[in-house]
Formats: sequence, C-alpha cells, structure tokens
Amino acid sequence: MLKLTHMKKDNHNQLWALRHSAEHVLMEAMLRLYGDKIIMAMGPATDDGFYFDFDVKGDFKISLENFAEIEAEMKKIIKEDLPITKEELSVKDAKKLFKDNPYKIEWLEEIEKRGDKPTVFWTGKEFVDLCAGPHAKSTGAIKAFKLLKLAGAYWHGDEKNKMLTRIYGTAFESQKELDDYLKMMAEAEKRDHRKLGKDLDLFVFADIIGKGLPMLTPRGTVIRKELEKFVLEEETRRGYQHVVTPHLAKVDLYKKSGHYPYYKDTMYPVMKVDEEELILRPMTCPHHFMLYKSRPHSYRELPVRIAEIASQFRYEKSGELSGLSRVRLFCLADAHIICAKDQAKQEIKNVLDLIDYMNKILGLKKGQDYCYRLSLGDRSDDNKKYYKDDEAWEKAETILREVLKEAKAPFFEAPGEAAFYGPKIDIQVKKVNGQEETAFTVQYDFVMPQRFDLAYINKEGKEEQPIVIHRSSIGCFERTMAFLIEHYAGAFPLWFSPVQIAVLSVAEKHAKHCEKLAQEFKDAGLRAEVWDENETVGNKIRKAVAQKIPYLIVIGDKELASEKLAVRLRGEKDTTEFEKDKFIAHAKKLVEERSGEL
Amino acid sequence: MLKLTHMKKDNHNQLWALRHSAEHVLMEAMLRLYGDKIIMAMGPATDDGFYFDFDVKGDFKISLENFAEIEAEMKKIIKEDLPITKEELSVKDAKKLFKDNPYKIEWLEEIEKRGDKPTVFWTGKEFVDLCAGPHAKSTGAIKAFKLLKLAGAYWHGDEKNKMLTRIYGTAFESQKELDDYLKMMAEAEKRDHRKLGKDLDLFVFADIIGKGLPMLTPRGTVIRKELEKFVLEEETRRGYQHVVTPHLAKVDLYKKSGHYPYYKDTMYPVMKVDEEELILRPMTCPHHFMLYKSRPHSYRELPVRIAEIASQFRYEKSGELSGLSRVRLFCLADAHIICAKDQAKQEIKNVLDLIDYMNKILGLKKGQDYCYRLSLGDRSDDNKKYYKDDEAWEKAETILREVLKEAKAPFFEAPGEAAFYGPKIDIQVKKVNGQEETAFTVQYDFVMPQRFDLAYINKEGKEEQPIVIHRSSIGCFERTMAFLIEHYAGAFPLWFSPVQIAVLSVAEKHAKHCEKLAQEFKDAGLRAEVWDENETVGNKIRKAVAQKIPYLIVIGDKELASEKLAVRLRGEKDTTEFEKDKFIAHAKKLVEERSGEL
Repeated sequence: MLKLTHMKKDNHNQLWALRHSAEHVLMEAMLRLYGDKIIMAMGPATDDGFYFDFDVKGDFKISLENFAEIEAEMKKIIKEDLPITKEELSVKDAKKLFKDNPYKIEWLEEIEKRGDKPTVFWTGKEFVDLCAGPHAKSTGAIKAFKLLKLAGAYWHGDEKNKMLTRIYGTAFESQKELDDYLKMMAEAEKRDHRKLGKDLDLFVFADIIGKGLPMLTPRGTVIRKELEKFVLEEETRRGYQHVVTPHLAKVDLYKKSGHYPYYKDTMYPVMKVDEEELILRPMTCPHHFMLYKSRPHSYRELPVRIAEIASQFRYEKSGELSGLSRVRLFCLADAHIICAKDQAKQEIKNVLDLIDYMNKILGLKKGQDYCYRLSLGDRSDDNKKYYKDDEAWEKAETILREVLKEAKAPFFEAPGEAAFYGPKIDIQVKKVNGQEETAFTVQYDFVMPQRFDLAYINKEGKEEQPIVIHRSSIGCFERTMAFLIEHYAGAFPLWFSPVQIAVLSVAEKHAKHCEKLAQEFKDAGLRAEVWDENETVGNKIRKAVAQKIPYLIVIGDKELASEKLAVRLRGEKDTTEFEKDKFIAHAKKLVEERSGEL
Repeated sequence: MLKLTHMKKDNHNQLWALRHSAEHVLMEAMLRLYGDKIIMAMGPATDDGFYFDFDVKGDFKISLENFAEIEAEMKKIIKEDLPITKEELSVKDAKKLFKDNPYKIEWLEEIEKRGDKPTVFWTGKEFVDLCAGPHAKSTGAIKAFKLLKLAGAYWHGDEKNKMLTRIYGTAFESQKELDDYLKMMAEAEKRDHRKLGKDLDLFVFADIIGKGLPMLTPRGTVIRKELEKFVLEEETRRGYQHVVTPHLAKVDLYKKSGHYPYYKDTMYPVMKVDEEELILRPMTCPHHFMLYKSRPHSYRELPVRIAEIASQFRYEKSGELSGLSRVRLFCLADAHIICAKDQAKQEIKNVLDLIDYMNKILGLKKGQDYCYRLSLGDRSDDNKKYYKDDEAWEKAETILREVLKEAKAPFFEAPGEAAFYGPKIDIQVKKVNGQEETAFTVQYDFVMPQRFDLAYINKEGKEEQPIVIHRSSIGCFERTMAFLIEHYAGAFPLWFSPVQIAVLSVAEKHAKHCEKLAQEFKDAGLRAEVWDENETVGNKIRKAVAQKIPYLIVIGDKELASEKLAVRLRGEKDTTEFEKDKFIAHAKKLVEERSGEL
C-alpha cells in the first residue's frame, strides 16, 4: 500500500529546499498580483509542503477563488526559471531593504539582538525575502506544486497578536509524486479515524466529561478487548507475568525515579489526600520496580518480565488533542524486563521478535508500514537532559545497534532523541497521510536500577544490579486503534471486527429465523447481529456494506427453504454458498488464527 | 460451612441484650476485684460480643493474666443469678448515684442537655450502671461467655481525650455456640486475606506508593484476570455491551448527576487542567448516561445494558483501609441497564439470576454464604437524603419486593438504607469471621433519567423516559478477591488457581524432563511451574502443599521410566495415576467448566 520512505527531520535536504523555494514563488506571485494590498509576514517549508502567512490592508480578502490566478502566476515564475541567489548583508542594509514591512523589521531586530548576520534570498532581481535558506537553484526546479487550503494564523502563533492569513501548499520533484500525494491525502481524509469513529460508532466525546477523554462505544470496545486479549495471550506465551498496579502514587515515587523534573509539565496536578501528595501516574516503571522489590530475587528467576495493560495519564495541550491518537488518558501494553546485563541483548532481540510478530498479525508490513529508529543520547549536551555515564551510554547504544543489525531490521539513527536514562529503539509507523510517527519504544535503562536499588542474588550468592528494558508490544491501545482504523479504513480483520456477521431479514416473517441463526453464531462465539428493521433489504445491505461488516447473510423466502447459507463476503458482489456448520467452523478458525482472510 | 443467619442491626434482640448483660457482669466482677483501682467508663454490646472501657488509677494495670480471675468472678456472679432490673430516675438522683465517676457525670450532662430521662440497670442490689438497656432478666441467662482481648481506646474515640483500657469479650446462649464462634475466629485468623495474600504472594503494598493502593503480583493478577474474563464472558452471553470510559471527568458531570453533594467527602480533590476542573470518578453512571445520549435510541433497542470493568476512586479514611477489602482505588464489574418502565421487573429478575449463577460458579451457596437485603428509603426523613417522589418510591420498592418474592430469594428488609435516587437490593455476604457485609447492590433509579434527560423513541414515535438499573454482577474485584481468599483459605478452584500444576524435580538430572512436561501443560493452556531448586523433594512438596497448588507432579527416576503421570491432588495424601493426555484433557475440561472439582 504505502511505502515507508523515512523522511529525515533534517531541513537541508533537497525536497525541503524545493518546498521553501515554492513558498518564495507563492510570495512573489502574490506580490505581483496584489502587491499594494498585502504585507508578507513569513513562511517555511514543512514535512508536507509549505505555508505562507501574510497581512492584508484594509478590507482586502483572499479566498479559495483566488487560488487559480495565484497558481497561474506561480507557473509563470517557474517557467521564467529565475535564479535563486543568497546574499549576506548588514542589519542596517537589510532594514533599508524591508523598511516598509514591520514583520521583517521585527525579525531583523531579533537577529540584531542575537548578534547574527541576516541573509536574504533573491528570486531573479525582482523579489527578495529575509530567509536562512537553503533553496533550489532556480524556480524552474519546481516541477509540481499545488495550493491546498486557506486558514487564519496568529503572528508568532500567539493569540495576543494580529490574525494573519495563511495559504498552505505543497511541492514535489515530479508531477507523479504530487499526484500520488494528493491521492493519498484524499484517501487519508476518507480514512480519518475521527470521521470513521463516528460513522462506524466506535468512540465518542462529551463536553461535560472533558477534553482528550474519549469513551469507547460497545463496538469500539470489542476492538479494544480483542487487542487486549491478543496482548495478554501472546505476552503470557512469551514468559511475561502480568500485574495490576494502581493508577496513582505519591509524588515521592516520581521524585525517587527522577521522572518528576522531566515530566512535571505533562503530569496532572497533585492531589492532597490526608498527609499524602498523590498524583496520577504518567508511566508505570516505578510501580513495577516497587513490586519487584517486594521480595528478594535469585539469578535463577531472571529475566523477570513484568507486564501490565496500564492506564496512564499525561497532560497534552488542548490544541494537540486529536481523536484517539492524542488523548489525556491512555492505556499502554507496558512491560519492564529486569535482567542480568549479559541477558539484555537477547531480551531486546526477543522484544523485537514479539513486536514483529504482533505487527504481522495486525497486518502491518515491516519496512513498509513500520520501521525502527535508533534514538541516541546527544552526549555533547550539557548533561541536564541525559544521565552522565559515557561508558554505560556507549555500551547500551552498541547493544541496541547490534540487535538491529543482527535482526536485519530496517532502521535509521536519530541522535538526541533518547530518554534521559538511556538509548531506545522507536517503532516508527507510517500513517495514511504519509506522516511518520513514533508508535512506541524499547528502552535500555541503566539508571533506574541504581535509583531504585534493584538487585538480584547472583550464582556466587552476592547482590548484583540488573538492567531494565522498558518496552511495549503493541503501543497504547488508543493510538493503535486510531492507526488501525485508518490503516484498514474500518474494514477490520474478522477477529477484531465489532460485528462479524449481520443477518438481514427480507420481511417481518423472516425475523424469527434470523434470530435463531444469529443465536447459533453467538453460541459458537461469533459476534452476530440481526437487522430486522422495517425497511427494504436493499437499504439494509447498503448500510451493512457501509459498516464494513465481514459477512452478510440475507434471509428471505428462498433462504428459508434452503439448507445452505448464502454469505456475502465483504468486498464481494456475489454470495458464496456454505453448509452452515462449515461456515461456522470456517469463521471460527479464521478468528482463532487471527487471520486477515475472510 | 458457615451458616448465614442474618443478624439484625436491631439492638433489642435477645442475643444483644444477653451480651449487654455480660458486659455488666464483667464490670461488676472488675469492681469486686479492683474496685479501688479502676473507674468504669462505658461499654456496649456489639455484633460479635461486647466490650468494656475503664480508666485506671495510679499505675495499676490490667493484663491478659488477669483474665482468669476476672472470668472466675464473672462465673460467680452468673451462678448467683442476680436479677437485672431497670430504674428510671431524675438526672439529679442519677448524678448523686454516680457522683464519684466523672465519665458517668459527663454522660448525664449530655442526657440533661437533651432533656431526656436517665435510666439505670441494677444487677442484684450491689451493682448499678447508667444504661438504656435492654438486658437479660438475670445474670443466670448468660450460659457461655469468654474474654477475648485487651486494647487501648480513647474516650469517645477521640485521640485528644484520655486513653482508656478496653476489654473485649463475647457471650452466647449456649456453650456450643460459643465454642463454634471461637473455632470460627481461630479459623478466620488463619484465613485472613492479608496474611494469606502475603503467604501466597498475591498482593503487596509499598509506603512510597500510598495507602489503600495495593499492587497485585503476577499470582494475584491471574485470579483477577480470570474473574474479569468470567465477568466479560457471562455478561456478554446475557446481552450486556461492554464499554471503556475514562477514569475521570469534569466536576460538572457529578454536579449534573447530583452525586457531588452526597459523595464530595469521599471523592478525591479536584484537579485544575487548563480551564477544566477534573475529578477522579467515584462511580461510572454519569459516563454511561453520556455514552447512551451520544445517539438517539428506539424502543426496539431496549433494554440497553451498558457494562464496564471500571476503575473507581473513593477516599476512605486511613483507619478504615484494610488489605484488599477496603481500598482507595477499586475496580467494579459495573453496569447500567436502561430500559422501559415495564421491562424493569424482568431485568431485575435477570440480574438476580446472573448474580446467583456467578455466585454458584464462584462456589458460594445462596442463603448460606450470601443473601439479599431490600434497602428502602425512609420517607419520613427530611427529604434531604432522599429524592422526593413518594409514588415513584412506592412503585420501585414494590417491584423490588415482588422480584425477591417471586425469585424465592432469601432476603430481609432494611429501612433507611436506600441510595438517594431509589431503593436497592444489597447482596449480603457472610465473611469467615461471621460478619455480614454488603458486597454490592442492584439499584432501581427513577431520578437519573430525569437529571440526564435520558430518552428513547417509543412505538408511537414519541420520546419517553426510561428507568435505570444500577448493578454489579460480582462486585468490586478487590473485595471479591479478599472474600474468596478467605472463603477458600487460598485453596482456590482450579480455574482461578494462580499455579495449577507444580512439577517437582527429585534431583538435578530430572529438571529437563520437568521443563518438557511443564511446557506441554502450558501449550495446552494450563498454568504450570517447574520447581527444580536445589533442595530436597520433601521440602518442595511441603512448600507446594502450603501454596495450595491443585496438582503436584514429582519427577524422579521411577517417574522418568513410567509412561504415566502420578499426580498428587490437593488435599490427598496419595497420588492418582493418569495417562498424560487424559490428565491434560481432564484438567482442561474442569477449567473450561469453571468446576470446583479436581
């Protein structure tokens, strides 16, 4: 489906430069067209394209209807193939150049304060903008572009400032890539989990409950519980021991772990209860460590793999909340592996194997739908962000790199993205809109065992300090559900389809037989629903198809008379005939195998 | 095992009177023995017996060693069969009678303030106490008694007051009943879930996490997850739809529901997040109502049975916290049935049937281990506690009473124990210490549908208001676990035994075969553990027996050579021979059936 081509966050790459140039072309085109009515403010390239913010004079307004003439003017500029050239100049000269533009003057004052030297980029000899670059060599390099949407945006993103107008666009190195992108975006819009969540009745929000706090409906809960069951079964099979620990703890616990200073701003406020200061937990590691410490451990028990389907609470800014993918209370398939140092490498390999297995069952292809990112600590940092122990970092990073190489896993390295207590492997997924996102991580931790004084008795009867591996297997259920809804566009594999079989009656007299049949399916452990509403069967079929139900069975006079079942498989136009028992056995087998087939 | 004889909270019953008289006999005996060294304070009868608080003069001290002589003196008084007689008198006369006792004078001043008339009870002509009674006719009625323990207790329970000495005792109408009680208490002590929780490694606490916040170990979690699975399966089979809703909400939600003023003191403090005031939820009903309201409903859909395995947070006083049975964060097998008024009775019947079924599978006998209590609203109340709607209360109470009668359920009525929004049926369980406790409830609610404006479209196409039934099926998992640990003394039914099979090696050379065998059990979905520590097999067997593991299989030379398995069933001294496949099939069948057999 989608090919995962990891996009570097590096803004010096070619596409980034091209998009920045396209933004300059947009500005120039607009100045040519409406030069006396607008003041340009700023505009960068982004992961998806570019945008341009500008101010308007008087009651002049730009609408979507202007896009055609703007794009036409941009095409002219591209055709002119104007060279884009950089010039360094003094703040004084730059101020002269932009004397009529208060936004540029403000930028220049910032640059002056920092003691930096401004650079400008010329497009031909007509247009110039204050800009750090880089850019394409000439406007002709922009082979394909499109303006996408119009929005309001506050200057510096601050609502105390003036509201400017923003135009979004994108640009590519070829028309084919642009077409593919536009197709992808149209598909992504259809697949948006917030839209499908409503259409398929999977989750809802309520103002009176609060922001970022979704409620899963019965249908959404089926998906959630099936995923939980999958996690519990597979982790148990692989030697994990599940626990249940409380959703909150004394603040002291997070002071002891050292999380508090790093996570304070994303934690909920403290609750004073009697003499205790309690706080909702943003992670489970300290709980699991206290559980481990509740009794002594021998080397014979290691690795101890403590797992939990764990609710966790983090404050996300309200502007960043989004459906199920960004919430304020999430549930993670979490675990902490406590092992001897010489077991760590094998354990991390086992974790990657588990993740690969679970992703495969979920229908995700390695290297296409997901890949790995090795997040390293930037040890040139001032040591505030990273725990100071160069040797331990070196060793840990080497182990993770070796594991990834030995597992022949598709991965790339990202310096400065580690946790404060050690390097990590991030599981990067590609969303339907082409964006890459960190789904969850596997972390190597040599700091917490010290802070919590974790120990085991080694072969020689002496206390030794273990290593901790923090990991998830499937990530947080909310975000994974959001991803799967979009990945499958709601047409879920049979095993986690909220309704597996819809039995549709043609007329009222068939309703009873529908009920009987549905009950047989239910007794066999399948999720069946009877649709016996008083409307045409055509209508019911259309609705059931829109609901993406895997199997539809229509019951009319003909079907009442038949010994066999006529089953319409999702995606098929014709029905397939089954002996009833064989159909039930077939469906049960697919569910048990968590198959992607129908 | 234990017979459930509901003990009325009514202090006028015969046993209560007898115990109160035993307490007077205790006081009299102590005055005879140590009259110049103690000042009597007060002492009531209780559900379990009685206690007596007294003050000591100088450095006089009563210890357990005094119990023999006190009991001997009490026996004398009982043998004397002194009549116990009531006298009403003026406060003035009473003050004269108790002029040397500051505690009695304080009581009398309270009585005077209230404008009441004091009563005293005479035992023969020698001993008198200020007391409201009732009492037995004479001391000879006390056929059996025992002093149990000694403790410190503050006057009026207030730690600002003086610490008094308290003697606990109990009394019965026959020696047989007393013996049974003492046997039960000794057994209860052995079964105390806090002790077994430690011995069997089921749950732990940590100071740094907080009070009333237990952590379930891997073994405890097995029990929890098996119970959860049972609830999910059985409720799904009976037409419940499970949902997942957030553990917190805006305070507004509980103001709207009307819970806030009633529950404020047992709720956690408010957390301010952006502009929202969030609070941890003490119940799920408002969440479920908001979910119901997220789309319109037709009469055809009713009853809608919304269920959730739901975390809930209530502040309990630290002195009341106890193991798993009284915690500050619990998880309830919760549900709200939204139905038409004429469906309510049948739905409540179905709920009782579900509860009876689940209790049966858990091994609890109706009328012996649990019974029902019909909690009614005291409508003579000032209407602050109960929602005002006499007709609705009348109707609701009649329905609940009819259901209990038609279901031939063992029940009794308790006025003034209802929820503020309607009457309820409480599921009363008998603990191993003989105490009765409300496990959970089934509530009939005609108030919330109004507050939340819940509606459905009836056959005529018009909006109608439904009824809500609040219920649990198994109660809160923490308390149910505490109860089951004590009920089974840790010898759990196979299906929720944390470890089902222990495979014990005789010597090191047998360890490999043990592993192989255990893996076969695990592959069959059974929970098996290998015990191959370097210690004698006798020792291992003793430990495994103490852990109450259902099946023990010892592997030595003889067993290596045999085709068959020699399985030691819990509670048996000899082993039983099984073909391996037959044993696995046997165990799997028992687990699937959630059988109580081995």
